[in-house]
Amino acid sequence: MAGGREELKLLGTWTSPFVIRVKLALSFKDLSYENVEEEDLYHNKSELLLKSNPVHKKVPVLVHNGKLVCESQLIVQYINEAFSTDGPSLLPAEPYQRAVARFWAAYIDDKLFASAFQVGRAKTEEKAEALKQAFAAVETLEAAFKECSKGKPFFGGDSVGYLDIVLGPIVPLAYVGEARFGIKLFDGTRSPLLEAWVERFAMMDAAKAVLPEVDKLIEYSKAKQARAAAVAAAARN
Amino acid sequence: MAGGREELKLLGTWTSPFVIRVKLALSFKDLSYENVEEEDLYHNKSELLLKSNPVHKKVPVLVHNGKLVCESQLIVQYINEAFSTDGPSLLPAEPYQRAVARFWAAYIDDKLFASAFQVGRAKTEEKAEALKQAFAAVETLEAAFKECSKGKPFFGGDSVGYLDIVLGPIVPLAYVGEARFGIKLFDGTRSPLLEAWVERFAMMDAAKAVLPEVDKLIEYSKAKQARAAAVAAAARN
Repeated sequence: MAGGREELKLLGTWTSPFVIRVKLALSFKDLSYENVEEEDLYHNKSELLLKSNPVHKKVPVLVHNGKLVCESQLIVQYINEAFSTDGPSLLPAEPYQRAVARFWAAYIDDKLFASAFQVGRAKTEEKAEALKQAFAAVETLEAAFKECSKGKPFFGGDSVGYLDIVLGPIVPLAYVGEARFGIKLFDGTRSPLLEAWVERFAMMDAAKAVLPEVDKLIEYSKAKQARAAAVAAAARN
Repeated sequence: MAGGREELKLLGTWTSPFVIRVKLALSFKDLSYENVEEEDLYHNKSELLLKSNPVHKKVPVLVHNGKLVCESQLIVQYINEAFSTDGPSLLPAEPYQRAVARFWAAYIDDKLFASAFQVGRAKTEEKAEALKQAFAAVETLEAAFKECSKGKPFFGGDSVGYLDIVLGPIVPLAYVGEARFGIKLFDGTRSPLLEAWVERFAMMDAAKAVLPEVDKLIEYSKAKQARAAAVAAAARN
């Protein structure tokens, strides 16, 4: 646990996978922080957020003793470096293994998260293509898991590492996708290792402490869809 | 200079800014390497490239004692970590300063390079918008330079650092843009500090050793345009 003089504040929203990623890093590093929830990220960003991330105007932002760190992957790397003596080291010590971890972390955002979001947003005809891309990304990540974990339970080996935390926010999203739309992102045929990893990760105390409840996410997702439908209907009239 | 037992090979093309970025890192770290030029990246990628970067199939790839590292920013970070005792340290030692450097490095690719490429590729009506975005990115980076350099000559302070190398490939491109299209990306009004930085960076021996000659780039750019025009004319007939 960080000493009493360390002040950590996280600006975010409880549903953002990128905010959840930072919460996972803080939780696995056993660091306490103040959570500052953005009330309305879509229509009315707070002054604090606009001032804290003037370049991208996005959550998450980590405020550490007044210093502002943006972009979720960079925040996780920062937490790992700034709190190197707190909790486990998330990135491997060996330069090549670090490069491999950073490579797959970029892949997770650029290919898997990007296409998974597209599945949610796209119109019917584009949805199928986005889903195909998401499944292809899962297959590639299945091979990456094999390469990185070397038969052990996590990307990080025996314990949770950088890639487990970067991919971690997919866990509740995968459960929501299955419950709401019958889409099983990770299954025993396409990705048996990642299917087992999802279950394993979801059961860890440090993950359970910060991952949002699936039921609440489902409720949120239904309400968002209903709002979007109402807006679309109003636009037609 | 790396010891005789270190084998470094770089797969790339001489015109790729991302390859030039890696060459800059190797040059400033005073590391010797074998340059392997892709003959025809657009129509006929080599077996070696496809095998070396099966995920993205892109240059640059650094091969270090048989280990493959992809993605130019990750390669530069890898070079800095794997050859920590060769030449200057490119990234700051302090975690917060490292996070700041990585933040602006991502910005350079996502905003400046992306819109600068778009200026080259886009149709007339979209060109103006892309140029506007490139100029906006330059203005933001002017402020970043002020923040990072603290009145010293480089992003890295007294000596060239990570951001100087990440932005470095823009230097010959900026000269080409001015000579061919009269576009001055960095000028005394919008970005006096970066305008001076471009001149300063271009004069450094380690940069001159690897930056492609502007005249050759202009020739290449003209030939490419002529080929594209011929293809377009053939398609019309």
